[in-house]
This record gives sequence, C-alpha cells and structure tokens, in this order.
Amino acid sequence: MSLYEKHRLLLEAAIEALHARTFYAAFPENPSPKTYGETADADGKTAFEAALGKPFAGLLQANADTWAGEETSPYTQESLNVSYPIYSTATLIDNAKSSQKSWAKASAETRAGILVESLMRMQSRFFEIAYATMHTTGQGYMMAFQASGPHAADRALEAIAAGYEELKRFPDATLWDKPMGKFNIQLNKTWRAVPKGVSLVVGCSTFPTWNTVPGMYASLMTGNPVIVKPHPKAVLPIAIVIAELQAVLKENGFAPEVCQLAADTQNHLITKELAEHQDIKLIDYTGGSVFGNYLETLHNKTIFTEKAGVNSVILDSVTDLDAVLNNLAFSVCLYSGQMCTAPQNFFVPSTGVKTPNGQVSFEEVAEKFAACLRGVTQNPKAAPFVLGAIQNPATSERIHNVNGLGSAIVLASEKLENPQFPNARTATPVILKVKATDKAVFSKELFGPIALLIETENTAQSVALAKEMALEHGAISCGAYTTDAKTQEFIMDEMAEACTPVSFNLTGGIYLNQHASFSDFHVTGGNPAGNASFTNPEYVIKRFTWVGFRQPVEAAAV
Amino acid sequence: MSLYEKHRLLLEAAIEALHARTFYAAFPENPSPKTYGETADADGKTAFEAALGKPFAGLLQANADTWAGEETSPYTQESLNVSYPIYSTATLIDNAKSSQKSWAKASAETRAGILVESLMRMQSRFFEIAYATMHTTGQGYMMAFQASGPHAADRALEAIAAGYEELKRFPDATLWDKPMGKFNIQLNKTWRAVPKGVSLVVGCSTFPTWNTVPGMYASLMTGNPVIVKPHPKAVLPIAIVIAELQAVLKENGFAPEVCQLAADTQNHLITKELAEHQDIKLIDYTGGSVFGNYLETLHNKTIFTEKAGVNSVILDSVTDLDAVLNNLAFSVCLYSGQMCTAPQNFFVPSTGVKTPNGQVSFEEVAEKFAACLRGVTQNPKAAPFVLGAIQNPATSERIHNVNGLGSAIVLASEKLENPQFPNARTATPVILKVKATDKAVFSKELFGPIALLIETENTAQSVALAKEMALEHGAISCGAYTTDAKTQEFIMDEMAEACTPVSFNLTGGIYLNQHASFSDFHVTGGNPAGNASFTNPEYVIKRFTWVGFRQPVEAAAV
Repeated sequence: MSLYEKHRLLLEAAIEALHARTFYAAFPENPSPKTYGETADADGKTAFEAALGKPFAGLLQANADTWAGEETSPYTQESLNVSYPIYSTATLIDNAKSSQKSWAKASAETRAGILVESLMRMQSRFFEIAYATMHTTGQGYMMAFQASGPHAADRALEAIAAGYEELKRFPDATLWDKPMGKFNIQLNKTWRAVPKGVSLVVGCSTFPTWNTVPGMYASLMTGNPVIVKPHPKAVLPIAIVIAELQAVLKENGFAPEVCQLAADTQNHLITKELAEHQDIKLIDYTGGSVFGNYLETLHNKTIFTEKAGVNSVILDSVTDLDAVLNNLAFSVCLYSGQMCTAPQNFFVPSTGVKTPNGQVSFEEVAEKFAACLRGVTQNPKAAPFVLGAIQNPATSERIHNVNGLGSAIVLASEKLENPQFPNARTATPVILKVKATDKAVFSKELFGPIALLIETENTAQSVALAKEMALEHGAISCGAYTTDAKTQEFIMDEMAEACTPVSFNLTGGIYLNQHASFSDFHVTGGNPAGNASFTNPEYVIKRFTWVGFRQPVEAAAV
Repeated sequence: MSLYEKHRLLLEAAIEALHARTFYAAFPENPSPKTYGETADADGKTAFEAALGKPFAGLLQANADTWAGEETSPYTQESLNVSYPIYSTATLIDNAKSSQKSWAKASAETRAGILVESLMRMQSRFFEIAYATMHTTGQGYMMAFQASGPHAADRALEAIAAGYEELKRFPDATLWDKPMGKFNIQLNKTWRAVPKGVSLVVGCSTFPTWNTVPGMYASLMTGNPVIVKPHPKAVLPIAIVIAELQAVLKENGFAPEVCQLAADTQNHLITKELAEHQDIKLIDYTGGSVFGNYLETLHNKTIFTEKAGVNSVILDSVTDLDAVLNNLAFSVCLYSGQMCTAPQNFFVPSTGVKTPNGQVSFEEVAEKFAACLRGVTQNPKAAPFVLGAIQNPATSERIHNVNGLGSAIVLASEKLENPQFPNARTATPVILKVKATDKAVFSKELFGPIALLIETENTAQSVALAKEMALEHGAISCGAYTTDAKTQEFIMDEMAEACTPVSFNLTGGIYLNQHASFSDFHVTGGNPAGNASFTNPEYVIKRFTWVGFRQPVEAAAV
C-alpha cells in the first residue's frame, strides 16, 4: 500500500474539516498516558536528555564541515550543548536545487503520502519535542507539548490538506471540444502546477515548530524544496521534525535535501544572504517587524510574514465581570505574554464597564484585574506551568524598564519562584494605567507580560483606537466584551475593516490567544501584522503556477 | 425574482465550466443575425455613429466640471470627438469611498446578480461596442466584435464565477464544538470576506474591454469599488460597458460610483496619481513593462499586471510544413501582431525542420513562410479584415525602422490597401532572419507585425533560448512543433519552468494567439510578462481577506 493510500482517509477528513471549520484535530492534544502510552513522557524526557551535549543525530542531509549550536535553557540558564551542521548559503542552495526536479515531478499523491507519514513519525517524538521546546523557548510543559507537538502537527496537516486540495482543483487533462458549425475543433489540454522554486522558512525563538511547519509543509506539498532556517536559540524541536521527514523522504527514494535544516550562529546569521539569493523564490518568516518589512520589499519572490502586532481588548459591558477578568488575566499570564496572540491594550471607558449590578468604574476594573492576575501568579500549583519562563533576556529588560515608569503602575512585575527550576528567568505580568491621549505608549508591541489599561472616553473611542492600532501597527487577535448586539455588530464592522479577528465575551476555559487549526485563520494577511494566513487558500496557491499545454487531438506526437 | 435567482443557473454553469475546463461560452461569438437579430449589426453601427461628436451619454456617476476626449480612428485618422467626464484624483477616490460600505456589505448573491445582469445589458450593445473598438484600436470587424463583446463578457463572467466560488468556499457561520472530556466548549463562529478597498483598473489601447473587464469584475464581485482608468485613445468601448453596469447598480439601490469611468488626457495622465494614492488598495494593469514594473514596487497594495512578453515558436519536426506555416502566418497577421499572445521569435535549427519528406532547410522554411504570409496579405477578401489597422503610430514607426535594417529581411513590410478605409494605418508583417548569437535583436518585445526567424544550432538551443526569453523578458504564449514525444515532453518540462503555456502542433483554424475563457489560463503569473492570470483562484482571492469572529454559545449578545 502506498503512503498515499495509507493516509488517504485522514487527508480527506482534513480537507473536509478545512471547509466545515468545526472542531477537528488529527493529533490528540492531551499528553495522557492513555493516549500516548504509559512510558511516553519518561521516554521523551530520556531521549531529550540523551541528546544534550552532543552533535544532533538523525539528519540525513549532506555532511557539513562545521557544527555549532547556541541554545540555552531559559529554565536552567545552562547551554544545551547540542550542535548542528553549518553550511554556506551556496551549499544549501545547491543541495536544494539538486533535489528540486524529482520532487517537483512527484505527484500530489506521492508528496501528500510522504508528508503525512512524516507527521506520524513526528508524533512518535512529541514528548521529546516538548522537552526540547521547554528548554529553548521557556514554555511551560503543557504548552510545549501541545503547541510544538499536536497543534503544530495539525497546522502542518492543514497546510498539506489545503495544498493537496488546490493542486487537485483543476483537471490534469481534458478534451476541449468546440463546435464550429460544420465541424468541431478538438484540443487535448493538460495542466501542470509548477512549483515556484526553492523555499526558505525562517523560524522564531518562541514557537520553533508551530510557526515553522505551516510554511514548510505548504511549500513541500506544492513541490518546492525547503531550507528551514531556525532561530539559533531554538533549533532542537524543529531539527527533530526535519530528521523524521528526511528519513521518510529517503525511504521513498527522494533526496533528504528536499528539506534541509540550515542552522546558523549569532556571529554569522545567514537569513539575509539566503533571502536575497536569486534562487530563493519563496520566503516564510515569523519574527520582528523590521526584518519582516525588509523581506516584504524583496523583488521576484513570494513572501509570507507573521510579524509583530498590537492586540486589543475592548471592554464595554459584561454579565460577570470576575469571570471576564479571570479569563483575561489567564490570557496575559499564558507563557508570560510571549504569544503573538497575547492581548496588550485593554481599552476601558473612563465611565467604567457596564454590569448587571451597574457601572464598575475604571479604577475598580483596574483593581479587580490586578487581583485576578495575582490569583494566577500566586497559585503555586499552576503559576510556574502557566507562565513558564522568559525566552529572551531582552524581554526581561523590557519588563523592568516598564516597572520603572513609576506612578502609573497598577501591578508591578515580580520574579516568580519556580521550585523545579530555581534559576528560571521569570516575570509576573505588569499592569500599567495609560490615558487614551498617551498614544506613544501603547502604539507598539511590548512583547512579554505587559498589560496596558487604557482609559478612553467611551466604547466608540475604544473601538476607534483598537482599529487604528490594528491598521497602523498590526493585530493578530482582539477580545471584545459587550452584551449589546448593536455594539457587537459595530465592533465587527470596524475590526473587519482592520482585518482583525475578534473573540467576543470569552470566559472560562477558552482564551483569545488560542487559534484552532482547521477553524481559526491565524493572521488574516490583511493588516501590518503579516501577509500570511494559516491556512487559507492564498497561503498555498501562491507557491505554484498553473501552466497549460494543448494540441489538436489528431496531432499527438508519437 | 432577484437578479441572483434570474442568473443562478448561468452562474452555476460558469463555475462548473471553470473546473471542467472544456469548451464553454455564455455569449455566442458569431455575430450572426440568427443569433443577435437581423438588424443588430446595423443598429449597432447607427448607435456608434450617433455617439460621435458628442459628450458620451449614459454614465450615471457624479457630474464632472470638465469633459474631454482624444480618440482617433486608426481607419479614418479622424477624431471621434466623443468627450468624457474628467475628475480630479481626489474626487474619484472620494466618490469610490462613499459607495464602498454598502457594496462591501452586499451579499455575494446580490453582487453576482447585479454583475451578471450588467453583462446581459452589455450583450445588447455588442455591435455598438464592436464599432467603437474598431475605431479606437484598429481591430478588424470580426475581432472587434468577438474580443470586445462575447469573449470579454465571457472573461468577465469567469471572474464573477471565480470570485463567487471563493466567497462561498468557507461557511458564513458554524458551531465549533470541542470535546474536553467532561464537557464541551462551544463557540459560535462566523466569517466575513472583507474587501481590500478601492480598486484601480488601468486599461490598454488595443483591447479596451477584454483586458479591463476581468480585473473590474473580479474586484467588484469581491466587494471592492472600482475606478476604471482607460487608455485615453480607447475609452468608448469600456465607457459603454460601465454605463450599462451603472444603470443596473442604480436600479438595485447602489451608487453608480461603485464603478466609475476615470478618463484622462495625454496632457494630464492620472494613472500614477491614482496608483500611488493611499486609498487605492488593488491595481489591475495592462500595458508596457516599464510602467508595470514600477506599479509592482508600490507597497501596501495588491497588484495584478499583464505586461510585455517575447513569445516564441519552436520548429522541430512536422507532418505537414505548409499547414504549419500557413497557421503561423495567420497568427502573425491577426490584428497585425498587436496581440499580447502574438508570436515573434521563430526558432529554426540551421539544419532545418524534419518532415516526412526529409529535412527542409532553414532557408527553405524562410521562403515558404514568406510565401504563406503573402498568401494572407495578398488575399484582398480577407487581408483587410485579418490585419485590421495599426493602433499606434509608434508601431508603424517600429516596423519601418526594422525594414531599414537591410540585408536580413526575408519579407519587407508594405502598406496594405483597405478599400473601405483608404486612410487606414496599415502594415503587412516583416520577416527578418537573425542569428542565435544576435540576442540583442530578439531579446525584447517588438510590438506589431514583426517576425524574427532565428537560426539555432538545434532544437535543444531553440528550447533553451525560448525558455531564457520567457524567464528574462516574459512570455504569454508559445508554439511548438514536434512529432517526437520525447522532444515534446522535454519542451513541456523546460517551458513549464519558465511558466509559459505551450500550444503544440497547431494547424487549421486554431491559433496560438487564442486563449479560451474557462479553459486557458491567460498569463500564468509566473514569469516577467505579468503576475496576473485570467482567471485562476489567486486572481480573486487576493482581493479580499477572511476575518473570523467567535463567541461562546451561551454568551450571545442581545
């Protein structure tokens, strides 16, 4: 049985799910022993620990002269001492090009079979990937497992499904039969989906698989060889995924270099060299806006970006203010605000928030929000796992600078004790009060656990500012709370014009930071936060070109 | 019955045709009295003549202060003396924006109904449009009727169908129901396809409706108001289309300014002003590469271009050389080579072309080709209609300059007598012989009836040069003649990499210049000839953004 046949039903279910957009997941998100086996977690931890202090094992790509690695655990501050093969840009491009023709000529079925199979192999290493993710990104265990494992694999499957569907959207061949009155003109026509060329996927330090696999699998599914350039501080999780994929490629007669790991080091970063190389035709990028904006100016390349955004919460009216603020406090705490979907700007009218028990003043909302945050951060059983650690020292720096601003602080950031990892780099969220007129303060992304309570004249101004932030500085998520249907419609109309998805009235165990595969389009592509969207049709269609051939029926060459 | 219901079956048939890609046409291409009525042609001619010398009647858009027009008939050299309303860029943008919200909020069904109805109104004026096209572009009567009438309407319908399908590809609403073990999380989710914004469609002087309506209808279908900026020398045909559309918009409660005609004059061209305006979010452009390349560099806009290309014919082996050369001669003569799909570079090995009767030498192919061309141009019953007139004096100039190159001329260009229009600007095709080493001569588009016979070492070099021309300078069509299946596969592989469609072994009444709606993708978007393709999914998807909204089932606002 071919790999395509082996995975056909899954692929079909995934395509159906893309269009139903109801809940769907191919990879269980619960790291339960019942699902993954009694020893899966311990085995994964052992495998992770066994990998430390060595050259990374398992890649099948061409040998490299040099090996290097620079990862440090945000939990222990110790180097992982894992090294990866280091190549010149020219070698990476040459290797990709030498693998290009056979992958381009492979059928959509062949590619889909290999790619889905690689996700199954990845699944067998979800726990190892989870520990690798914790100790590179600082994510808590649960998020590290879910985001880098099942959620990433689901996003990869989504890209495979979307790509496969688009490749099958037009016939391979047809008879064009035009009646001309006394006779017909008949042409045999065929079409090919021609891959764009070598694809570069640039990863980030906070979500090393989740933000990398969509572009990687979208490019591979549509026939393009891929060079994955991870962040030098977060290589191991994606190296494991690539090693598994290379094994499946090789088993099926393709060069492992169809997908290469291109690690680099801080003293010789190669992203710019790669991106500007004339043979790189596709670029996927997750990271800061300055570099993303530069990439978007490169000519004769197709660019997909996910950059910084300023995410807003609009508080108008609620049925249960405590439930709302508890939900938002958790959103701010989750991975210490280091998610691209984390809320930053909380717009509250100076007249306060409407509740069934009357108006709750701005000051009271601020106090209650601080109390809710303390409720999370002072819960020793949960806090270390929810907040995780701070990936980048620069983020800690930013929080401390904000703390130093003085009088406007509602709640100061503190170090969070982590009993398991006493050296963990941690910081509880800081809440600042800001006037709507102090636009300079809230008009940029303050990456990390920083929440700004912005006092506005009324909800109309809250919406106008949230819209302006999204249009000018980008936004990937938005939360809004209103019990009034007209206000809700108004918010939808306005935020739609800023191409920002809105979660309304979330309370309980669902958070505005969470974007579900097969249902929520992640990043819309419509505002400065990025031009990519996991996974809409545009995300895969732009990776290939339809080319047609035709000839008279009687003239077929022999 | 709504307009959507009225046209629903047609729309469904068009969507089906997009995917079957067999022959399909909604608008009959034969201007026969049986189809269009006994008096249709005469009525159209009368209507055209009645429009001359007056301000153009029928537009419903806001009044303008000034009116102007600069069209001259390539057949009579006389001014049409039709004037059109002239607006400032600011007024055009303001008018578009004031019509924007209601059009964006209209359902896909409402928009599709209105747009298909407008094509029916356009159909009622096909003959008038044909005469307007003849006397602005110089096209012969039959091409003017077909290209500006039924073929353009079919391409418009194709854009409507593709846009409608994409808007319906995801649900408006769904229930997201996630099992969490002991309970489910349920979210009501909705999605909107948010239009990108004001759309600018820039027309060309040779195909004023055919090259304009795809972008115009694609933008309108996806909810964007459109400003149509025609070439100042070819306004009347598209003005008629816009007037009919504005009438349907108004009848259905929408502002006519949803689609505005934005004529300009040579002494104040407004394309650059419009294109650079921050409120223009989408640009469709047909025309020269220099301006097209400039447009493609504009930031924060979605650009669709069709620019110049260098189209090749590869001659390797044939079963009937006369049939082949007659077919190619007609391709060169059709509208005097002023089609973006017209062949220019004919690659022939120095050893000649293989035929069932042996090798026919390069020189003999050149002589036979010249004879075939004379066969078309010296047929007084056909030539004036096939060749039409030269739209632009600069094209005549180019032909004369080429004539003056001297010894390499196989066939010189001559004036073609047109008994009906003695003042017609005409030129029969010139054939030049060029060495494969004289790359400077054939590495650019020589717009007009200019054919270059390029002597190559062998077919491999012919293919390499055709591929290089396409990759470096763009190509929209390619013809290839081979009786060998391996050579054909080789040509397909190579030209696919240059994203150029190839017509193989065409003889008889079908020409490589002809791209059929609902079957042939026109321009692939994959080489420098342009980044647009009539009509693939990308052509419509990039005109809107998917934005999602969600809220807990129990939390619906009231």
